[in-house]
Amino acid sequence: MTDLQNIVDEIHAELSPRRGEGKVADYIPALARVDAKQFGIAVVDLDGNAAIAGDAKTPFSIQSISKVFTLTLALCRSGAALWTRVGREPSGSPFNSIVQLEAERGIPRNPLINAGALVVTDTLLDGRGAEGAAADILAFMRERAGGEPVTRDAEVAASEAATGFRNASLANFIRAFGNIHNPIDDVLGVYFGQCAIAASCLALARAGLYLANEGVDPLAKRRVIDAAGARRICAVMMTCGHYDASGDFAFRVGLPGKSGVGGGILAVAPKRAAIAVWSPGLGAAGTSLLGGLALEKLAARTGWSVF
Amino acid sequence: MTDLQNIVDEIHAELSPRRGEGKVADYIPALARVDAKQFGIAVVDLDGNAAIAGDAKTPFSIQSISKVFTLTLALCRSGAALWTRVGREPSGSPFNSIVQLEAERGIPRNPLINAGALVVTDTLLDGRGAEGAAADILAFMRERAGGEPVTRDAEVAASEAATGFRNASLANFIRAFGNIHNPIDDVLGVYFGQCAIAASCLALARAGLYLANEGVDPLAKRRVIDAAGARRICAVMMTCGHYDASGDFAFRVGLPGKSGVGGGILAVAPKRAAIAVWSPGLGAAGTSLLGGLALEKLAARTGWSVF
Amino acid sequence: MTDLQNIVDEIHAELSPRRGEGKVADYIPALARVDAKQFGIAVVDLDGNAAIAGDAKTPFSIQSISKVFTLTLALCRSGAALWTRVGREPSGSPFNSIVQLEAERGIPRNPLINAGALVVTDTLLDGRGAEGAAADILAFMRERAGGEPVTRDAEVAASEAATGFRNASLANFIRAFGNIHNPIDDVLGVYFGQCAIAASCLALARAGLYLANEGVDPLAKRRVIDAAGARRICAVMMTCGHYDASGDFAFRVGLPGKSGVGGGILAVAPKRAAIAVWSPGLGAAGTSLLGGLALEKLAARTGWSVF
Amino acid sequence: MTDLQNIVDEIHAELSPRRGEGKVADYIPALARVDAKQFGIAVVDLDGNAAIAGDAKTPFSIQSISKVFTLTLALCRSGAALWTRVGREPSGSPFNSIVQLEAERGIPRNPLINAGALVVTDTLLDGRGAEGAAADILAFMRERAGGEPVTRDAEVAASEAATGFRNASLANFIRAFGNIHNPIDDVLGVYFGQCAIAASCLALARAGLYLANEGVDPLAKRRVIDAAGARRICAVMMTCGHYDASGDFAFRVGLPGKSGVGGGILAVAPKRAAIAVWSPGLGAAGTSLLGGLALEKLAARTGWSVF
Repeated sequence: MTDLQNIVDEIHAELSPRRGEGKVADYIPALARVDAKQFGIAVVDLDGNAAIAGDAKTPFSIQSISKVFTLTLALCRSGAALWTRVGREPSGSPFNSIVQLEAERGIPRNPLINAGALVVTDTLLDGRGAEGAAADILAFMRERAGGEPVTRDAEVAASEAATGFRNASLANFIRAFGNIHNPIDDVLGVYFGQCAIAASCLALARAGLYLANEGVDPLAKRRVIDAAGARRICAVMMTCGHYDASGDFAFRVGLPGKSGVGGGILAVAPKRAAIAVWSPGLGAAGTSLLGGLALEKLAARTGWSVF
Repeated sequence: MTDLQNIVDEIHAELSPRRGEGKVADYIPALARVDAKQFGIAVVDLDGNAAIAGDAKTPFSIQSISKVFTLTLALCRSGAALWTRVGREPSGSPFNSIVQLEAERGIPRNPLINAGALVVTDTLLDGRGAEGAAADILAFMRERAGGEPVTRDAEVAASEAATGFRNASLANFIRAFGNIHNPIDDVLGVYFGQCAIAASCLALARAGLYLANEGVDPLAKRRVIDAAGARRICAVMMTCGHYDASGDFAFRVGLPGKSGVGGGILAVAPKRAAIAVWSPGLGAAGTSLLGGLALEKLAARTGWSVF
Repeated sequence: MTDLQNIVDEIHAELSPRRGEGKVADYIPALARVDAKQFGIAVVDLDGNAAIAGDAKTPFSIQSISKVFTLTLALCRSGAALWTRVGREPSGSPFNSIVQLEAERGIPRNPLINAGALVVTDTLLDGRGAEGAAADILAFMRERAGGEPVTRDAEVAASEAATGFRNASLANFIRAFGNIHNPIDDVLGVYFGQCAIAASCLALARAGLYLANEGVDPLAKRRVIDAAGARRICAVMMTCGHYDASGDFAFRVGLPGKSGVGGGILAVAPKRAAIAVWSPGLGAAGTSLLGGLALEKLAARTGWSVF
Repeated sequence: MTDLQNIVDEIHAELSPRRGEGKVADYIPALARVDAKQFGIAVVDLDGNAAIAGDAKTPFSIQSISKVFTLTLALCRSGAALWTRVGREPSGSPFNSIVQLEAERGIPRNPLINAGALVVTDTLLDGRGAEGAAADILAFMRERAGGEPVTRDAEVAASEAATGFRNASLANFIRAFGNIHNPIDDVLGVYFGQCAIAASCLALARAGLYLANEGVDPLAKRRVIDAAGARRICAVMMTCGHYDASGDFAFRVGLPGKSGVGGGILAVAPKRAAIAVWSPGLGAAGTSLLGGLALEKLAARTGWSVF
C-alpha cells in the first residue's frame, strides 16, 4: 500500500490547484452551499488497507451512488426477475430523460438512471413498506462501511422532495404503465431518502469492496451477492454508470463507476480495490470534474484499467 | 492450452444441437444462402496458441467487425482529432438509426455504429483515395491475421452497394452537416468493401490479438497502436460494440466485443487472448445467437470477465 | 332549417346500422359501461334553430371537448400572454405524449393536447383557487348552453383522478420547468373535473355557437370573446383538435373540431352553425367513429367545408 | 376590385419600410444574391381580376410552393392510392426532418414536407421518366398561369443538386423502405427542377385559382381536379403548408397556404381568390417575413379568413 499511498498523494497534490473548478449542484440549497474546494480520495484494497488523501473522511451527499447499493439489495431480493422490470442498456440520454420511457412503455433502460432506480426502489418496498425499505438501505450501507459513519441527511431529503417534480413525473409515468406497485409518494420518499445519504470517501470505498471481490465483503467476510451478480452490477456500472457520459468514462478511466450529483464517484477495480473520490465541482456531463480526473490518473498509474 | 481446448470443445459440443437456430441475415442473397448450421470458435492466446472448434477455419463475411480495424487505422492516422468528428457514447438506438444524427448535427455517437464507421472510413480516404483506403484496410487485416486468409468478397460488396440505401442515406445526411469530406460514392464503396471482407474465426482471433496485448501484435512483434489507444478501443467495444444490445453483452459476457450481421463476434480478453466465434443465426438483437452463448460460457468457465 | 333537419335525419338513418362499431373508452368504469349503441347529432344555427337526431339530448362525458371552453376562458383572462406559456402548433404526437415537452422545455405544443390543457387550466386557478376555477368553467358552459343541462359527473372525476397517472406525470414535468404555478393536485383536480362535465349534443352545439359567430353568443346576445380570438380558437381546433389525426379530420371534414374520448365531437361551421355529434365507439385515432363519419357527410351535403 | 386594389396598395405601403428585414436563404448562391428589398403582392379573383402591388410581376424561385402543383398532378394521376404512400398529418417537425420517417417506416407525414414531396414526385415519374415528369410539371404550371411566364432556372436546379445532401439522404432513406420506385437520381433531379421553377406573384396567383374554385380553373374554364380533391389540397395546405409553423399561419392568417424558401407564399381564399406574396427575407420559421405579415393584414381587412 505504500506505493498506492504515494500515487494517491501525488494525484491529490497535482489536482489540488484546480479545486473549486466546475459547477456545484445548486438545485437545492443544502447542496449549493457545500464548500466547492473540498477534494477527497480513498482507495481500499481487498485486505482493507486504505490509501486516503484530502477530505477523504468528510461525509458528503452520495446522491445517485446510492443506486448501486439499492440495485444490489433488489437483486438479492428479487433475483433475475428484476430484469423484467428494468433493462440493462445504456440510455444514450440524460439522467432524467422521460423520452425513452414512452417508447419503451414504462420499462426504464437501466437501473442507474433515475427512472430505473425508482423501479428498483419500488421493489424494496414490497412487503416492507416505506420505513422498512429506508431502514434496509441505511442498514446495508452501514454494514458495508465497516464502522465509518453513514447517515441520512433529513434536510437534503426534504429539499429533494420539495423540488423533485421531475422524479415525481417519472414515477407517475412509470406507474401509468403499471411498473410501480407501491404508492408513488412512498416510493419517492424512499428514493429521496437514499439520495440524501451522507458518507465519506472512506466509507464509500469500504462499502463498495464486495463489488471488487466477486460479491463477498472481504472485511465482514460475508457474501453479499453471488459472484455473477457482483460482476453484472459492475457491467451495468461500466455501460450505464454516468448517464450519457458513460462511454467517455469507460474510455478515459476503464473502470466500472457510478457518479452522484453531490460530486462523488465510486469506482471498482475488480479483484483489487474499491475507490471513492469526491469534489463538488461538476463538469459538463454532470459528474465530478476533479473526481473524474483523479480516477483517470489513478487507473493510468496503477494499470488497473480492465481493458 | 489443453484446458482451454477442452473448454472450447465442451462449449462447441453443448451448443451444437442448437445449430441452425436464429435468423440468418437475408438482406442480400450472398448472406442469405450461407449454411445456417455452421458454428466455429477460435481462441488465440498472447503466445499464439490457438484452441479451435467446429468451423473455425471457414471464412465468413465479417461485416461490422471490420469497424474495429478501421477504427484502429483511423486512430493511428488521425490520433485524438478523430474524436472531434465522432463520439464515444453508446447510442441506445439500433445500428442504422438516423434519429440521433439529426439531434447531434452530424456527429455520430460512436465509431461502431454505421454512421460513425462511415466517418471513420472517410478519414482513411484522405490523401489515399478510395482504392488506397481499401487496400490499406485489407493489408492491415492480412498483416494481423498472420497468414490466415483474408479476402474481399466482390459479390457481397456489390450486393451491399446495390441495396445500401440506408447507408447512402446516412452518408448524405452526415455530408449535409459537413462531416464527410470525400465523395460520398467513394466513401460508401470503401465501406461496403470493408464489410465484405471474408475471414475465418482463426484469422479474426489472430487479427484481434493486439487489442488484448496493449497495442502490440504479439506474433508479428510489432506495435500497432499505443497502449492507451488499444485500451480505449476495447472500452468503446464494451460500451458500443453491439448496437442497442451492448449493455446486455457486457452483462452476460463481460468482455469487449464487436458483432457482425454475418454471425461473427470478435471478443477481447485483455492480457489473455482474442476470441472469435461464428454462427450465422442471429438473435433478436441482430447478433449471433450461438456466438453470444458460446462467449458467455467461455467467459464463465475461464473467469476472463473483466469484472 | 327543414332541409338541414332532413340532412341530419338522413345521415342518422344511414349510419344507424353501424351503431356499436368502434371501441368504447375503457380506462375508467364509468366510461366503459356506457351503451355503445347511442348516437346523437345536433346542429344549431346562428338563429338558434336546432336540427337534431337520435340521442341528441342524452348527456355524455365531454372529456377533452372541455379544452375549447377553458381555452376561451383563459384567453379572456390572460389575453395573448397565454401564448408565451403554450404554443399553437400541431404536435404530430398522441394526445398524452411527453416527448415533445422535454425537447421544448415544458412549453406544450398547443392548448388542445393534455399538456397544454393543464397549463391553460393552471391559469384559471390564478387568484381563484381550485374551487373558483371549477365553478367558473361550469358556469361558463351553462351560460352558453342556454338552459340545456350541464353537470359535473363526480364519479367520472373521481375515477379520472384515481387513474390519472399520465396526466400527473405531465403536470409534474411541466412544473419542473416552472410552467405550472398552482399546486399540482389542485390543477389536476380542476382538470379532471372539467373532463368529467356531462352535456348533450344539443347543449354542446348551443354552447359552441359563439365560435361560429365571431365571438358573440347569438342566443344570449353577449360577446364572449373578441372576433379575432374566436377565429383563432377555430384555427387551433382545425390544426390541433384531434391529436395526431387532426390533419385527417381537416382533410375529410374541413371544419374546425374538437373530439373527446367519451365519443363526442364539437365542430364549427363559421358564420353558419355549431354541430355536436356523439357516439361512444372510437376509431383507430381515438375519436368517435360514427361521429367523424356523420360530420364528413354533413360537411359534404351542406357545403360547409371551409375550403 | 377597386377596394381590393386599395387594400393591396395600403398593405404594400405599410410594409414597404420593412423591406430587407429577415434573412435571405443562402444555401445556394443563386438564392443568396437575390435583392432582399423586393416585395410583391398579387390577388386574383375568380373572374380573373388582379390587384397587384410592388414587384408582383418579377419572377422568383418558387421552391416548395411547387409541392402544391405536383400534389395536384399526382392526385389526378394516382387518386386516393397516393394516400397509402404519404400521410396527411402535420409533422410537428422542421421541413427536412428525418426523425419521423424512421418511426413511421418510410411513409412521410404529408406531401408538403420534403420527404412527402419526394414520394409525390416519384409517382409522376411512373411511365413518364424524369424528362416526361419534369415537362408535365412545367406544362401544368404554364397552363394554369394563363400566359404569365413560368420557367425553370437551370442554375438554381444545378445548385440544388450540388448541395442537396439532405434531400438525397431523405430519398435514400425512403427508398430503403421501398417507398420510392424510380431511380433516386432521377427523382431528385425532377424534384430539384420543380423547386427551381421561377414565376411571379401574378403568375402564381393565377396558377392557384383552381384551388379557390372547387377544382376548376376559372380562366381556362377547365376542371383541373374534382371539387373534393381541391378542398382536400387546401386542407393539407392549412394543416401542413408551413412545416412546423403551420399552426401559427392558420392562427394568424386563417387561409390555406404554402410557403417557399425563396420568399414566396401562395394562399387560397376559398370561393374568392388566390393570393401570392413574395419578399426574400425569411423569419424565424423559414417563411417570408413580409409575406406572412401582408397575408395577415389582407385576411383581416378582407374578412377572408375561413374561420
